[in-house]
Amino acid sequence: MAAADILKSKIRSIPDFPKKGIIFRDITTLIHDREGLRLVVDELVKRYSPMEIDIVAGLEARGFIIGGALAYALGKGFVPLRKAGKLPYKTEQYEYQLEYGTDRVEIHVDAVREGERVLLVDDLLATGGTSIAGARLIEKLGGRVVEIAFIVDLPDVGGRKALREAGYPMFALCEFEGD
Amino acid sequence: MAAADILKSKIRSIPDFPKKGIIFRDITTLIHDREGLRLVVDELVKRYSPMEIDIVAGLEARGFIIGGALAYALGKGFVPLRKAGKLPYKTEQYEYQLEYGTDRVEIHVDAVREGERVLLVDDLLATGGTSIAGARLIEKLGGRVVEIAFIVDLPDVGGRKALREAGYPMFALCEFEGD
Repeated sequence: MAAADILKSKIRSIPDFPKKGIIFRDITTLIHDREGLRLVVDELVKRYSPMEIDIVAGLEARGFIIGGALAYALGKGFVPLRKAGKLPYKTEQYEYQLEYGTDRVEIHVDAVREGERVLLVDDLLATGGTSIAGARLIEKLGGRVVEIAFIVDLPDVGGRKALREAGYPMFALCEFEGD
Repeated sequence: MAAADILKSKIRSIPDFPKKGIIFRDITTLIHDREGLRLVVDELVKRYSPMEIDIVAGLEARGFIIGGALAYALGKGFVPLRKAGKLPYKTEQYEYQLEYGTDRVEIHVDAVREGERVLLVDDLLATGGTSIAGARLIEKLGGRVVEIAFIVDLPDVGGRKALREAGYPMFALCEFEGD
């Protein structure tokens, strides 16, 4: 079985969460499984170890789990991108639109240095709003976003297209169409 | 230099955060550093690889970074313990006292099985409230908490004593006294 199919078989689908008509793709069952977690990280290591990456950044909160493991496995440091008000030192902020209202993501001002090549990681690509916000923040500090990596892509929700239009390369280990 | 001293030298101290008189110990600078992240995980692997551990659990959100990396490095699966309302499947909850009010931590009901030996991980031990709540949840599902591991212990805040009284073994890679 191909890696993508193994990963998909370990992801739990929860109908009508967080609201009616949405199928939530729950990666907790995937990473609960030792072979699942191992496969996720090793597949990402396979892709990124030949690339020149200075540091791995992850989006709160599920992006921390995979991002932390991947940074360790690649022998790089890790940068957390957090929700508003969580980081203790001076931050840069980026506000972005949600369906209703706005949200904000933050980064420590010294977390990325001018010219650094950053790999941004999150668990799942839906609309792409959060990951584009994260990528903008990295660029605000002078970093370059080498790629944005996900475990799961939901191509029909539009994030892949949004990332392409925003100019960010993306990669996902598997996808669920029709979501 | 001993591992604990190296780790401490990479942790940033932020005075008066989140409120006046508190020195916040900021581990983002430690894990931003590739040698820092590597040392944290490798020291924990050294301690836990000889022990019988079935799965690693981490507390949201900074516990996800270290917990995810440690689970991967130990070849185990990972269980996220999350704040209220974040987990998509059926959960067990545990409510605990804060200085003002209460907080709640949740676990998926199938995240730990009867008799499993669980290593619980968080970044920093202060009062111990959250980690005791996490340990109780693991036990609610029939799991056994082998140990609770931290990067930093602030012994003067009382968490170490609280964990001892609650019956949970703890381990920290370094400590800051006088906090």
